[in-house]
Amino acid sequence: MITFYTWATPNGRKISIALEEMGLAYEVKTVNIGKNEQFDPAFLKVAPNNRIPAIVDHDAEGGPLSLFESGAILIYLAEKTGRFLPASGAGRYHTLQWLMWQMGGVGPMFGQANHFIRYAPEKVPYGINRYVKETQRLLGVMDRQLAGNAYLAGADYSIADMATYAWTLNALTGLAEQIADGLPPIDNVRRWLDQVGARPAVQRGMLVP
Amino acid sequence: MITFYTWATPNGRKISIALEEMGLAYEVKTVNIGKNEQFDPAFLKVAPNNRIPAIVDHDAEGGPLSLFESGAILIYLAEKTGRFLPASGAGRYHTLQWLMWQMGGVGPMFGQANHFIRYAPEKVPYGINRYVKETQRLLGVMDRQLAGNAYLAGADYSIADMATYAWTLNALTGLAEQIADGLPPIDNVRRWLDQVGARPAVQRGMLVP
Repeated sequence: MITFYTWATPNGRKISIALEEMGLAYEVKTVNIGKNEQFDPAFLKVAPNNRIPAIVDHDAEGGPLSLFESGAILIYLAEKTGRFLPASGAGRYHTLQWLMWQMGGVGPMFGQANHFIRYAPEKVPYGINRYVKETQRLLGVMDRQLAGNAYLAGADYSIADMATYAWTLNALTGLAEQIADGLPPIDNVRRWLDQVGARPAVQRGMLVP
Repeated sequence: MITFYTWATPNGRKISIALEEMGLAYEVKTVNIGKNEQFDPAFLKVAPNNRIPAIVDHDAEGGPLSLFESGAILIYLAEKTGRFLPASGAGRYHTLQWLMWQMGGVGPMFGQANHFIRYAPEKVPYGINRYVKETQRLLGVMDRQLAGNAYLAGADYSIADMATYAWTLNALTGLAEQIADGLPPIDNVRRWLDQVGARPAVQRGMLVP
């Protein structure tokens, strides 16, 4: 059994999608960010960076394993089950490359766009413009990659797609109006979103919690 | 032989440090960001996200392998050499966890602090304050982790330390004045910086290019 600490955010959804795709048994512990539950001492022991998602795998080899950072959890689950991340070769490293691209680019930068557009208590045009432009640039990179590949890392659906799906859906729905002006062609991104979003495990994962 | 595309930035230094630590043969191709060389079509083929670092390993199993994203390159080099990332168990995933913490937190957020403090063409107090606070918070998380551990992922020096060293050094030198007010105690971070910085391979890596 895996205890899964999460909330209704794109980083949490990476892991709920992966757990559903891999058919792993898990129990959900919600960490309500709106109520500052991420600062509870019990949660901090599992996640010293104060962020969801985090897991405890009670059946890990060598004893219970606590893990935070969505990218590390995705690699752990993929290696535990032997699925969605090739064990060796170019396919393995291309998957890790696009996973890292999500972790270091899409997540932080779409997140800043979201902050300056929706949550900042004052209107900061410089910040809005900076992160809208970076969101558009990253969507352009993604579209060029998906023009020649069914999925982000190539022909096969992988943990890189699981990491990127909810962030991209959020940007193209929640920020659609704000990123429209200057958005490069993203037909391939939209095709990929439909394809990933049609997977039953993704649909189940998007409902957790 | 590995062709290593880089520039004098903390992301480039992650890989020069790793190549030196692992004793791998490499040739440096500088990509001068000040001259927009990251937009050269030849570089874009290797790095479609327009960012250094990137590598081509001409001796990879199965043929030459192109790879971008510093975090993916670190995992690749560690798995190629069997060093600085345990092959299995809790040590492996704790190393990946702190590597991801650098990739998704320290890199992007210290980078934004740097941008708003040094490079933004206008003074944006909201942006400066937001990213200075996040830099201070991340340094606090790091200090608590290093209070009970010699290195980020535990007792052993790993790719997580290689990823985090130059970013932390930059923040504590280049942004020292701006982050001083409100900085939590970071004695353990300073001890770790000295320890990592004393390694001959780190000293050589910091001089590339």
